Amino acid sequence: MRFMTSSDKPGNASETAPAEPTGVAARDWASASADPQYRAAVVDLLGALAYGELAAFERLAEDAKLAPTLEDKAELAKMASAEFHHFERLRDRLAEIGEEPTRAMEPFVAAYDGFHKQTAPSDWLEGLVKAYVGDSIASDFYREVAARLDSDSRDLVLAVLDDTGHGGFAVEKVRAAIDADPRVGGRLALWARRLMGEALSQSQRVVADRDALSTMLVGGVADGFDLAEVGRMFSRITEAHTKRMAALGLAA
Amino acid sequence: MRFMTSSDKPGNASETAPAEPTGVAARDWASASADPQYRAAVVDLLGALAYGELAAFERLAEDAKLAPTLEDKAELAKMASAEFHHFERLRDRLAEIGEEPTRAMEPFVAAYDGFHKQTAPSDWLEGLVKAYVGDSIASDFYREVAARLDSDSRDLVLAVLDDTGHGGFAVEKVRAAIDADPRVGGRLALWARRLMGEALSQSQRVVADRDALSTMLVGGVADGFDLAEVGRMFSRITEAHTKRMAALGLAA
Repeated sequence: MRFMTSSDKPGNASETAPAEPTGVAARDWASASADPQYRAAVVDLLGALAYGELAAFERLAEDAKLAPTLEDKAELAKMASAEFHHFERLRDRLAEIGEEPTRAMEPFVAAYDGFHKQTAPSDWLEGLVKAYVGDSIASDFYREVAARLDSDSRDLVLAVLDDTGHGGFAVEKVRAAIDADPRVGGRLALWARRLMGEALSQSQRVVADRDALSTMLVGGVADGFDLAEVGRMFSRITEAHTKRMAALGLAA
Repeated sequence: MRFMTSSDKPGNASETAPAEPTGVAARDWASASADPQYRAAVVDLLGALAYGELAAFERLAEDAKLAPTLEDKAELAKMASAEFHHFERLRDRLAEIGEEPTRAMEPFVAAYDGFHKQTAPSDWLEGLVKAYVGDSIASDFYREVAARLDSDSRDLVLAVLDDTGHGGFAVEKVRAAIDADPRVGGRLALWARRLMGEALSQSQRVVADRDALSTMLVGGVADGFDLAEVGRMFSRITEAHTKRMAALGLAA
């Protein structure tokens, strides 16, 4: 089960996203990748997503240790294993287009590791909220970016996206914990805010470092880099996060 | 790739194992499970294997953090993910035969957790040796036990066994490390000995606690419990381990 707004609107990204000045969405990889800047942007994107999945695997597996029951442990292990399979698909795609997966991932290691280091959950509920928030933000981002990709890259990103959505498990557990003790909600609301703040801060670091990727994210290379549009994309993702947290009983 | 003797002899268990006094191997689950003691033994076995896979998942994912490169991290994550899928099959089988998977696993939590707590690798190479030793001992044990099972349970155990064998990756890396610095071999040999010692000590604890399981392991319920035969099974597994370690350049 998916939870909340982003999943109900598969067309969300293309409705709110800017138009496609380069028309890359109508082309396949063979044609679109002839543009070296577009190619560099997609390699960056796949590298960033691949390392993100590998890091998520590692952290979910680590957080599984906090599980109060064997069933809960198995659920988090299942999410971790799903992230690993996403990693495999993205890594294999990098290899397929002739890129060294490790080299593509390396520019993003510091940002993800920094994020996870700053947001190590101190208990099971914090781990669940992190799993849910991470899964949701990843979905929103994948959906935003899919509309800007050539057809082959888009198919891959949407396929990986389709297979996420294990967050329903986390939602159910967090709701039950807040029902049982409403004070838990206040603590977890603070935690969710910290997660989002840290995610934004690491993302902005990546945006500043990786010109080709950032330019593509805001609508194509033809118009050049538009920091304001990056800001708007972050706003859309933050807004969706805030709505999800409110629905979960956490004032964000 | 599989490495060393145990994999070359698929018939190993049945050659060296005692005869089947109960003839259970010729029966299917529906028929064999009418015997409540046999049923209890198989539920114990599936519970023990399932929790073993879940614990292995957790530890391999943890050890992936020690990986020196992203490729190495991905390899260990792959092994972890494979263990998780074994866990799923065993857990689903427990549910299929009407058992609560958690209840079936619980009696074995302390032994596995004790083993892993006592054998936390202090570096990447120790982690690799542990992954390889664990994978190999598990294969040997699965093979020993398969011959004593009804046809349905045997098919499941052999299917899970077939899908192991990621140890080749570890073997290659450990060999290279010993070639580069032979002193590493001495340290890892001690480590492998400690792993085996701890595995035996935890197994003996399980054997002492779980009568139905132990009786089945030594050849069937008709002849009653035979501690000497349990000892012989442990000997066969230890011997195979010693040969593997020698071939790896580690005097065990």
